[in-house]
Amino acid sequence: MCIGRFLENAWNIATSDPRKVIHGVKAGIALTLVSVFYYMKPLYDGVGGNSTWAVMTVVMVFEYSVGAIVSKSFNRMIATFLGGSAGVGVHWIANQCGEELEPVILQASVTILAAAAAFSRFIPSVKSRFDYGVMIFILTFSFVSVSGYRVDKLLELAKDRASTIVIGTSICIFTSMFIYPVWAGRELHNLTYKNLERLADSLDGCVTEYFKENEENNGRKHEGYKFVLNSKATEEFMASMARWEPAHGSFKFRHPWKQYLKVGASMRSCAYCVETLGGFINSEVQAPELLKKHMREACMMLSTSSSNVLRELAMTTKTMTRSTKTQFFVQDMQFAVQSFQDVFKHLSKQALLLTEHEAVKENTAQKTKTVPIMAIFPITTMATLLIEITERVKSIVVEVENMATQADFKENKA
Amino acid sequence: MCIGRFLENAWNIATSDPRKVIHGVKAGIALTLVSVFYYMKPLYDGVGGNSTWAVMTVVMVFEYSVGAIVSKSFNRMIATFLGGSAGVGVHWIANQCGEELEPVILQASVTILAAAAAFSRFIPSVKSRFDYGVMIFILTFSFVSVSGYRVDKLLELAKDRASTIVIGTSICIFTSMFIYPVWAGRELHNLTYKNLERLADSLDGCVTEYFKENEENNGRKHEGYKFVLNSKATEEFMASMARWEPAHGSFKFRHPWKQYLKVGASMRSCAYCVETLGGFINSEVQAPELLKKHMREACMMLSTSSSNVLRELAMTTKTMTRSTKTQFFVQDMQFAVQSFQDVFKHLSKQALLLTEHEAVKENTAQKTKTVPIMAIFPITTMATLLIEITERVKSIVVEVENMATQADFKENKA
Repeated sequence: MCIGRFLENAWNIATSDPRKVIHGVKAGIALTLVSVFYYMKPLYDGVGGNSTWAVMTVVMVFEYSVGAIVSKSFNRMIATFLGGSAGVGVHWIANQCGEELEPVILQASVTILAAAAAFSRFIPSVKSRFDYGVMIFILTFSFVSVSGYRVDKLLELAKDRASTIVIGTSICIFTSMFIYPVWAGRELHNLTYKNLERLADSLDGCVTEYFKENEENNGRKHEGYKFVLNSKATEEFMASMARWEPAHGSFKFRHPWKQYLKVGASMRSCAYCVETLGGFINSEVQAPELLKKHMREACMMLSTSSSNVLRELAMTTKTMTRSTKTQFFVQDMQFAVQSFQDVFKHLSKQALLLTEHEAVKENTAQKTKTVPIMAIFPITTMATLLIEITERVKSIVVEVENMATQADFKENKA
Repeated sequence: MCIGRFLENAWNIATSDPRKVIHGVKAGIALTLVSVFYYMKPLYDGVGGNSTWAVMTVVMVFEYSVGAIVSKSFNRMIATFLGGSAGVGVHWIANQCGEELEPVILQASVTILAAAAAFSRFIPSVKSRFDYGVMIFILTFSFVSVSGYRVDKLLELAKDRASTIVIGTSICIFTSMFIYPVWAGRELHNLTYKNLERLADSLDGCVTEYFKENEENNGRKHEGYKFVLNSKATEEFMASMARWEPAHGSFKFRHPWKQYLKVGASMRSCAYCVETLGGFINSEVQAPELLKKHMREACMMLSTSSSNVLRELAMTTKTMTRSTKTQFFVQDMQFAVQSFQDVFKHLSKQALLLTEHEAVKENTAQKTKTVPIMAIFPITTMATLLIEITERVKSIVVEVENMATQADFKENKA
């Protein structure tokens, strides 16, 4: 049963994103390529028994995106070199100090460097870029400094180790870049414009759901904002990996990946508001139908104008082409806010009459249905939230425009 | 300059959380203990040249929390055993098939298993618990199946490898559990009640900031909700590590760690609302001073009653003792909502008079300052948001009560 469900789960993942299957196949190919070194005699002689290390390199380094592989490869190479050098250095120093002090110096150096390395992994700048490198550094350093080898034997070992790592990482980078490459940068780019679309859909969905006349279900289309809320970690990981990638597709070498994080943050700020708005849809306190009917058009206009801006930004990001329409849509949104406020002024006068009427009835002790003033609160809140959302959409516009400038988006010739 | 800032950064981290320094020292101790095997002759003979693997085990497995170390140790042991067995099995089968087929079978098995393993890391249930294990499995399997060793040599190697892993992981677990242990479970527990406190502080802070009479700055105390918004990944990681930990302190073996995630989710849902509320504090459209003064007391009462509930929940969680006061505070909050609505009814009548007055003035064409009806929107929104927050606080109450039941919290005897 359990295995059945597991396989079903795996099958669903495989069919929903075939690139994950391709990643598996690529990993298989990379490992096969490296294990070829065990079978081809001349190569075997060249790299020797250390080919174990080439296999290990491939297994440890082969990640999903090109950026992650390049990052780990770089970390592994540099850290092995630094760790090895430091090890040889300490070894040499310990050797000079005589037989008695030697183990003490070696042991102390391992303890101190291991402690420093373990601590350094808490420093954010180290953690985000060199986490794997620190681990490999201390690993290599420990191997070298505590091994009983003499220095000349160590140098020979170092040469072997270096060649296995170069072979392992080259195979990984080659496989990842030339067989259906998955670029962290492109993933981040796609995630960003898809999140803009999701936000637009959620906003439309929420408002439509609130004002729907019959009980049709719109299929929870408006829950896309949840995805936006939970994208922070993914965005940060992708952005930090994307920095390691060479130019690919429309992305130049120094593409402003950090700016995507700012766009993401402004999107989340907007999504918080949409989440709050969504909370009111299923709220028990609903505005009276009459009022809702009255407000429907103005609210829809407001949300549609905001989501139009979001969709235009998504399109700008997707096509990497500045759109002349964005400013038009922003003005449209401003206009919607203005006309919304007019409707409200009009409404508040009506509500006034309604309450007056109510007061009169109370005095004459007639029992008729009256609309409590509290009933207009859900709709004023909705109004204020929608207006707040337009404000937050404007800051997304600013961040996307910064991105367009920094990344040198094409001008629209249409 | 750059190094100076880096060191300053490191120093700040060290002074703000000395446990991170202790972790570094512990890592140093663990690595020193394991490298002792290289120096103590009798032990050296026992474990042989493979002690490299013990060092590697310590470097790879030594994480911050006990749970993470136990999880990785378990993964490493089981995966090495399974990978080794599978490798020996394939080796044996390949051997039986004759010299020509042997490399083909070995190669094919590596490719297929590596692909399957790489793909399996995308399956959430594998990713969260056995990510490291899958890596070690494929590593060991590749080593064994592609190595040219005969089976009897392999078994000897397996014995060595097993003993180094046992030594390495034992040292790690011992060091992590007996020297200033950091339990993922306790961390999660602390994070949860601290986040409840942060949420209470933010709520109070936001409302105080909004209604403050003079321009004093309350030191951004109300920004704690941002921490709550960003705790999701940490909570999930901690909860998944806590499951590997033995009973410690007040936490039994089957403590309901998953329930903490539900509490976390309900807190975030509340934090979204607080975030939206916070957005209105610095909003340009402010309610007129008169209105604010009028509402001040009712709003403060509402927010204080909500934050009292949150603080009581924090205390319940912190002391792991059910509080009889929680229900009292919830009723208090309900009462605040009720009296808030009364104030509003009263206010709306006043607003009514105000507008009537305004209308009269318009008719007589007198030019005096009038309060536009739009001006009450910020305050009605604030009202609705505060009431929505009380709703969301109630769902936190439910989740914390579920936690109290599942974790068998003590009854308060006071």
